[in-house]
Amino acid sequence: MAEGPARVGIVMGSDSDWPVMGEAAAVLDDFGIRYEADVVSAHRMPEAMVEYGRTAHTRGLEVIIAGAGGAAHLPGMLASLTPLPVIGVPVPLKYLDGMDSLLSIVQMPAGVPVATVSIGNARNAGLLAARILATGDASLTQAMVDFQDDLRRAAEAKGEKVRAHNR
Amino acid sequence: MAEGPARVGIVMGSDSDWPVMGEAAAVLDDFGIRYEADVVSAHRMPEAMVEYGRTAHTRGLEVIIAGAGGAAHLPGMLASLTPLPVIGVPVPLKYLDGMDSLLSIVQMPAGVPVATVSIGNARNAGLLAARILATGDASLTQAMVDFQDDLRRAAEAKGEKVRAHNR
Amino acid sequence: MAEGPARVGIVMGSDSDWPVMGEAAAVLDDFGIRYEADVVSAHRMPEAMVEYGRTAHTRGLEVIIAGAGGAAHLPGMLASLTPLPVIGVPVPLKYLDGMDSLLSIVQMPAGVPVATVSIGNARNAGLLAARILATGDASLTQAMVDFQDDLRRAAEAKGEKVRAHNR
Amino acid sequence: MAEGPARVGIVMGSDSDWPVMGEAAAVLDDFGIRYEADVVSAHRMPEAMVEYGRTAHTRGLEVIIAGAGGAAHLPGMLASLTPLPVIGVPVPLKYLDGMDSLLSIVQMPAGVPVATVSIGNARNAGLLAARILATGDASLTQAMVDFQDDLRRAAEAKGEKVRAHNR
Amino acid sequence: MAEGPARVGIVMGSDSDWPVMGEAAAVLDDFGIRYEADVVSAHRMPEAMVEYGRTAHTRGLEVIIAGAGGAAHLPGMLASLTPLPVIGVPVPLKYLDGMDSLLSIVQMPAGVPVATVSIGNARNAGLLAARILATGDASLTQAMVDFQDDLRRAAEAKGEKVRAHNR
Amino acid sequence: MAEGPARVGIVMGSDSDWPVMGEAAAVLDDFGIRYEADVVSAHRMPEAMVEYGRTAHTRGLEVIIAGAGGAAHLPGMLASLTPLPVIGVPVPLKYLDGMDSLLSIVQMPAGVPVATVSIGNARNAGLLAARILATGDASLTQAMVDFQDDLRRAAEAKGEKVRAHNR
Amino acid sequence: MAEGPARVGIVMGSDSDWPVMGEAAAVLDDFGIRYEADVVSAHRMPEAMVEYGRTAHTRGLEVIIAGAGGAAHLPGMLASLTPLPVIGVPVPLKYLDGMDSLLSIVQMPAGVPVATVSIGNARNAGLLAARILATGDASLTQAMVDFQDDLRRAAEAKGEKVRAHNR
Amino acid sequence: MAEGPARVGIVMGSDSDWPVMGEAAAVLDDFGIRYEADVVSAHRMPEAMVEYGRTAHTRGLEVIIAGAGGAAHLPGMLASLTPLPVIGVPVPLKYLDGMDSLLSIVQMPAGVPVATVSIGNARNAGLLAARILATGDASLTQAMVDFQDDLRRAAEAKGEKVRAHNR
Repeated sequence: MAEGPARVGIVMGSDSDWPVMGEAAAVLDDFGIRYEADVVSAHRMPEAMVEYGRTAHTRGLEVIIAGAGGAAHLPGMLASLTPLPVIGVPVPLKYLDGMDSLLSIVQMPAGVPVATVSIGNARNAGLLAARILATGDASLTQAMVDFQDDLRRAAEAKGEKVRAHNR
Repeated sequence: MAEGPARVGIVMGSDSDWPVMGEAAAVLDDFGIRYEADVVSAHRMPEAMVEYGRTAHTRGLEVIIAGAGGAAHLPGMLASLTPLPVIGVPVPLKYLDGMDSLLSIVQMPAGVPVATVSIGNARNAGLLAARILATGDASLTQAMVDFQDDLRRAAEAKGEKVRAHNR
Repeated sequence: MAEGPARVGIVMGSDSDWPVMGEAAAVLDDFGIRYEADVVSAHRMPEAMVEYGRTAHTRGLEVIIAGAGGAAHLPGMLASLTPLPVIGVPVPLKYLDGMDSLLSIVQMPAGVPVATVSIGNARNAGLLAARILATGDASLTQAMVDFQDDLRRAAEAKGEKVRAHNR
Repeated sequence: MAEGPARVGIVMGSDSDWPVMGEAAAVLDDFGIRYEADVVSAHRMPEAMVEYGRTAHTRGLEVIIAGAGGAAHLPGMLASLTPLPVIGVPVPLKYLDGMDSLLSIVQMPAGVPVATVSIGNARNAGLLAARILATGDASLTQAMVDFQDDLRRAAEAKGEKVRAHNR
Repeated sequence: MAEGPARVGIVMGSDSDWPVMGEAAAVLDDFGIRYEADVVSAHRMPEAMVEYGRTAHTRGLEVIIAGAGGAAHLPGMLASLTPLPVIGVPVPLKYLDGMDSLLSIVQMPAGVPVATVSIGNARNAGLLAARILATGDASLTQAMVDFQDDLRRAAEAKGEKVRAHNR
Repeated sequence: MAEGPARVGIVMGSDSDWPVMGEAAAVLDDFGIRYEADVVSAHRMPEAMVEYGRTAHTRGLEVIIAGAGGAAHLPGMLASLTPLPVIGVPVPLKYLDGMDSLLSIVQMPAGVPVATVSIGNARNAGLLAARILATGDASLTQAMVDFQDDLRRAAEAKGEKVRAHNR
Repeated sequence: MAEGPARVGIVMGSDSDWPVMGEAAAVLDDFGIRYEADVVSAHRMPEAMVEYGRTAHTRGLEVIIAGAGGAAHLPGMLASLTPLPVIGVPVPLKYLDGMDSLLSIVQMPAGVPVATVSIGNARNAGLLAARILATGDASLTQAMVDFQDDLRRAAEAKGEKVRAHNR
Repeated sequence: MAEGPARVGIVMGSDSDWPVMGEAAAVLDDFGIRYEADVVSAHRMPEAMVEYGRTAHTRGLEVIIAGAGGAAHLPGMLASLTPLPVIGVPVPLKYLDGMDSLLSIVQMPAGVPVATVSIGNARNAGLLAARILATGDASLTQAMVDFQDDLRRAAEAKGEKVRAHNR
């Protein structure tokens, strides 16, 4: 378990988003990065969202990961409130396969960026947060290099199964 | 010119939206409905937006019209802050023909509705506000009926030009 | 149960739409707003639809909620017939995830607005009707403010479950 | 010029649609098929539209061609009112390249078909009307066969220009 | 059972399309219109397709209904080969919800129209064929009027079930 | 079983793609064309991918078939590394029905072509490879002609089942 | 100028496609590959198209490049008629930015592949034809390697201009 | 002018991307962050791209901004090669309004994140890089807070112009 104050805030509009967003937490755990997860809803608790965004960097957070679906406003609103990098996860809802979520998150106006990852891919949000925190942290950078080596080895190992089909 | 306090608030993220959003104002003028227009940006002045949303109904406003483009968060955020009906105008930007604006505005989660009109059609937002205010106002209702009669007559008049092509 | 004459008309093309459209009715019940629900099909009973639209405001209705799917013409046609505000619910059909329903409802020409809500979200249509009727009705406005407070409290309560994952 | 009563009704929502819809008329002229063109707006003159649809087949019309854009309801509404075949022309508007028009016209529910042609292609609507009228009319069928022969010859003639690039 | 030679040809690329395309046949049966169904594949038996298209009107067929999915070429190719009206049914395949089928069928170039109906809606193709054949056939026209009356009555009957929810 | 060195390389990002990509292998088997299948991941083993692409033609491969999904970079990257023809198979993932895969593969810039087949259709990738290898190989060309004859006969045979529905 | 009989057939529906399709010819010229260009229209001259497809490989052609737009049937129909590899170029028309052309060409059913390149990118079609012909032709393979080297050098040279902006 | 070694690498496939990508450079200049811009083409110079990605973090770069259009592979490939955070800018090309670029960049598989910004919005890429570098840098964080204050003031100032329309 990571120690010390949380460096990454993982927020979502409802606890029902946890099955998706929990993958960001799992990745941060793997890298030993402390995080805090919470429900912060742009549409149901807007003032708490403003408070969250305004104080995040003063509380020691360094990156925010925000997941939202449909007319997904949480990542962009937080990005307008904090100077921290905000990573947006488009959560797919029942219809449209997450295309509405994606466009609502990624198409931010000039001045207020959201670092958007692929639809439903909170795991990549966690990895992106780790890369951001690795900036200027040699040991975390090395951990990311090692992680990429592991990805490579796992992919190479899968080759054996496919080559077994060769005749 | 309409008199008395403003009943409709027309807000947009920048003065560059006025050429689109001004059509809402023009319609309200036609119906003698007092409005106030202002720049309220979800992404550039989020706290002022919260203040605007929270106080709108206490200041006497009865309907809010909000225009926004791209990752268009203003209408939905205002709808989360006010008990008033909020009308959203998807403003088309340089790319995607307003499809991102439309989905960002209309696809609101259960609990927080935005009354969305067609892409770039602030005129319809003004007309929808007039219909809302006409609820329980016989004279305004009659004005809307008259307006619809005028639409009909104008359409009928155009028939003459088309029939002239008949041979 | 709400008393007095119906203030909101909820219409749909078939009784098979009731599982979706019934959520609008449920919300109105919660707010103590009287409604009447009926089948009015643009394509199967066009003259009855015209009659419904033309007489709605004379019968005491103040808002119309219309649900339709595919080439969804009911909301727009009613909006052309009545001076009342018409709320359109895009009902998703078997293919295209409701995108055809949405565009057929929201993309109305200048002059004839439809207040469109999100795909399949009749609950929001009911809430929008309540907001419209709350215009100039302090007690209904307060009920909407209370409803929004409840939304906030429910969202806040969900935070506890998510925070329980923090380690 | 064709003689006798009109066999095809060409209708559109505004005289501004004539530059598109006039191509249907031009084709009918070429085939010597009498038509009448008029403005019939689903949204601006709904009762006149109902009247048009209900009486079309009693007035001697055999096919209706209807053009409309955006939330395009005219073709489908006419199809619900008349037993005649209705051909729908999706007119592209300023945004979305006619995709909204296409879906609003073609995605009709079971029971009420609209014969939809390509976006902005009123010429094909005229040709389809001619094919329909040619059903059981040997001379009109022959004219269509001849027209197709002309298409072929014109295409073949263009080959010469392209082959000139061969080296 | 209808008697006499077939007036409508119903063709599809494979017998696996029958569950969709059979609905066109069922409608024609209801109207007492004789049809013949067959497999004609643009991509697997192109020469037979050419033969089918070239001879259809000489064999007594008056309308062709063609269903196809994906890169759906059968309706358009038949339309280029025959002077008869060709009705295209976009059959949805495993991916893209029939949007590829729709565009491949409806977006025909000027000169070669296909009367396109909604995705997967072979029933409407049958009804459109009946309307086409009803042109100039008073009894079939009356049958279509009666059919539309039945549609209306069935829709009206459904109203009772919905009104039962009113409280 | 085909003999001799592999002429076609079939590559994919993971062994989980085999159920889709194995159909390419099956077709090559049918035509007696030797292939080798392997896991080559653009994103997980980029240097091995470069090596694969750079050496493919020197190892005797004549065609590469590459399957990938989402932000699908493998086919295009291989095409930039090898002078061989590269066939891309858009593998559909959980969301978006393969539209992202298709656009990521087909929309290559001028200079670096990828021969893209339909979404999820590795069978066609195998057939395209066979056609490419048949160029200038009379016996393989004849095998393809025979294969097309078989397709035709199978389609014709299906007609009997459909005609059985005729009444 | 290349000598000998044509090895590549470049076909299109009209001479108006030459500005797009001529780029395929230009590339083949650069590689010294003989081609013949012609107008072959699926919809205007279907029998000539069948003849073209059936005889192509017997006339010595080794690859076919076919460009088409909208409901683009030419590449797929030729692929069903010939055993040769067919390359499809989606030509963008006035509406939909070539998305209809792309889907009509690429989404072929199992059994009949079309090698699809990017929208409007006939240059890549020419390059793909060259890669196909280079299969088993060492000198043409070397020419393709040299071409790729030139691409690299040209890209590298552009770096200088961009680095000039560094400060 | 910023001093010291470059902290941000801005790369693009061609110097023709500079008008878009130069805005990232301009923002970094404003924040006093040293950058280096270069042409690195995934498709034209793949080995140089591998070298760039593999060595970026060893050369002192802390963030990479990569712009690409169409089948846009540069951001994702770099992300697979470096442990640094990679920001992707979808550059819109002639067709599809950048939707292909967006999906090719954002839809990365689990394991390899790209921080995607809005279509054509290199300015936001620069701002996101600044936010990333501000992580743990109090003075840069303050500069971002000041920048956001400036955004707010500029937006507020625009309100005056809009309020001037009030009557």
